[in-house]
Amino acid sequence: MTHAVRHDAMRAGNLAVVLGALDRRGPLTRAALAEATGLSKTTVSKLVADLIDAGMAVESGTVGDGERGRPGVAVRLSGHRVAALGLEINVDYLAACVVDLSRTVRLLRAQAVDNRAASPEDVIVRLRALATSVLAEAAGLGLSVAGGIVALPGPVDRSTGNVHRAPNLGWRDVAVAGALGLPLPVLVENEANLAALGELWFGSGAALGDFLHVSGEIGIGAGLVVDGALFRGAHGYAGELGHVVVAPDGPECRCGGSGCLERYAGQDALLPPGEEMSALVARLRAGDRDALAACGRAGTALGVALSSAVNLLDPDTIVLGGIFAPLFPWVSGPAEETLHQRLGQMRARVPAVVVSQVGADAAALGAAGQVLQRIIADPGAYLLAPHH
Amino acid sequence: MTHAVRHDAMRAGNLAVVLGALDRRGPLTRAALAEATGLSKTTVSKLVADLIDAGMAVESGTVGDGERGRPGVAVRLSGHRVAALGLEINVDYLAACVVDLSRTVRLLRAQAVDNRAASPEDVIVRLRALATSVLAEAAGLGLSVAGGIVALPGPVDRSTGNVHRAPNLGWRDVAVAGALGLPLPVLVENEANLAALGELWFGSGAALGDFLHVSGEIGIGAGLVVDGALFRGAHGYAGELGHVVVAPDGPECRCGGSGCLERYAGQDALLPPGEEMSALVARLRAGDRDALAACGRAGTALGVALSSAVNLLDPDTIVLGGIFAPLFPWVSGPAEETLHQRLGQMRARVPAVVVSQVGADAAALGAAGQVLQRIIADPGAYLLAPHH
Repeated sequence: MTHAVRHDAMRAGNLAVVLGALDRRGPLTRAALAEATGLSKTTVSKLVADLIDAGMAVESGTVGDGERGRPGVAVRLSGHRVAALGLEINVDYLAACVVDLSRTVRLLRAQAVDNRAASPEDVIVRLRALATSVLAEAAGLGLSVAGGIVALPGPVDRSTGNVHRAPNLGWRDVAVAGALGLPLPVLVENEANLAALGELWFGSGAALGDFLHVSGEIGIGAGLVVDGALFRGAHGYAGELGHVVVAPDGPECRCGGSGCLERYAGQDALLPPGEEMSALVARLRAGDRDALAACGRAGTALGVALSSAVNLLDPDTIVLGGIFAPLFPWVSGPAEETLHQRLGQMRARVPAVVVSQVGADAAALGAAGQVLQRIIADPGAYLLAPHH
Repeated sequence: MTHAVRHDAMRAGNLAVVLGALDRRGPLTRAALAEATGLSKTTVSKLVADLIDAGMAVESGTVGDGERGRPGVAVRLSGHRVAALGLEINVDYLAACVVDLSRTVRLLRAQAVDNRAASPEDVIVRLRALATSVLAEAAGLGLSVAGGIVALPGPVDRSTGNVHRAPNLGWRDVAVAGALGLPLPVLVENEANLAALGELWFGSGAALGDFLHVSGEIGIGAGLVVDGALFRGAHGYAGELGHVVVAPDGPECRCGGSGCLERYAGQDALLPPGEEMSALVARLRAGDRDALAACGRAGTALGVALSSAVNLLDPDTIVLGGIFAPLFPWVSGPAEETLHQRLGQMRARVPAVVVSQVGADAAALGAAGQVLQRIIADPGAYLLAPHH
């Protein structure tokens, strides 16, 4: 019994080592895999057979096998069967995507909808419908969706699957994952954290070094990526940039504080009631003075909050995403000016401010990507799961 | 040749495994060490003999050897030979300490001196004299001091041993480690980072969870400890709490910004020119209105900056050290009130604010402790060092 358990644990560990090597280093022959992992060729061949059976790997063409240079049959991650579901509830939209194991985005759906006007129950029913239709499409493509993560605009208690408080939605302790009732394991995570991971896996990624990704929405959140992994803080609540103080005596914020960054640079501070982002961008392009002044103020406030963030977190790069991506030409200048003024003398280098390469879908993509990371880190658990 | 190198590397790795087990788990028999490390008893016995020869371990009494319960000879870390030097240059004092491998503080010397009035060269000459006298005393105690670290009040470039800029000292790119010219390897590190490590190893430690340690001096720095290790940021500049924005239009700061926390809660903002900290504490105890008002303002400003820090970093606990330790009864109340007001609605729990258990020597102790960590992580390098 003990022997069998040990054997299973060892096999699961070795599956993860082989799948991880294929993920990081692309197509490899079995011989190159053996060399890269330190496992015997016999063991590698058995594990690769298991991964091919499970639809997680596939033989494709030939490559040189490293040391000897003889061409061999290449094995790579397969995207044809295993996939992950990414979902997002934000203040003014819902999103769902399916990404396969090779990190190809197979399906992506978004709905513009004012979730503040609806009850949590109604929002969850709507998201369930969106997710169910996306899962049906995925099944039609022959994909087996192993799990999902929901991105939520507020601090999340990952142990319970609850969002503790989403002040911009007016939600408190809503049990999102359970209420969705989807036929697969579903977790929840803060949307700003997931958007940062979306940028890491589907945007500029490793070129950014350690980066702070800013998600501008109705609320403003941020996610810090250090050495390719998310910095979460002790309770998963790190990166709440929207409630960093710009001016302590400033306007009251829905969080209970005052003068928070959100009140100067959140979507509600920039858009007149009823105006769409595209209309604001059109006004900015036309040189509308009010619009330019509002973006200038937002950029300066962003620079103040980011200078506090850089003093505390010391990233290489700042990535502006969400609404700050379309507004980048107008907010990044004042933000950078403020950063240089406040940080230039103390630091050898002030972090560069760059625009997100992913855009509005970053959090949903990051959610699906995180499910894939879990599968790649423990493919044994996936192979043993009842739905497989 | 390759074989010999591999053998040395393996031995060095195994020495670190055995020494690490003794460090974390206290006195152990050779049999218990073998069980804890997975090494054979023969290998453990050889490694323990090497560590005893090097004065890094010692036999002391008997303990049960774990599974079998038979009493055996216990081996533990020895403090009788190997030690580390901790140094600190701050704005108004110098400090030096020697801590032995068992983390007992053997020597601790501080000098109150206004380093702003002196040139960097003069300050380094003074610190060299202090360090030399402490090293002579350590030699008299039979201690072999393996290395040292200098704590500096500003962002440090660890690759060069330079302090990039210490605005409160008026220093720029001073090559401290090289200029000291001590007969042992010396590195530099930011004092706020080291003070946090001092609290971890010589203060409340693991009971704090993930914590932000605030060093109040002329400047204000902070160090974040996550999972028992320092969070440094991409360039080692994380934790610059003193330049987090309290009010962007506030008084100008020596960093080039304005309204930074230091201008409201640093020592210069609290003490009238020429007054000592003890005189301020006496006035506070006597109920002096001006002193109470100044500490109230400082505590509130600290609460504003810390609320931004908690939003970004999400620690379990905030530790107030440096000048905030003697001022704790007067600054912690307003700071906590501000934290609860700004964070209470968004978080299930607002971090507790506690007083440092180490005090003014935290950075020098943390410096010595960090040298010890390096030795414990790689005792082979120490054993092979020419001075040994």
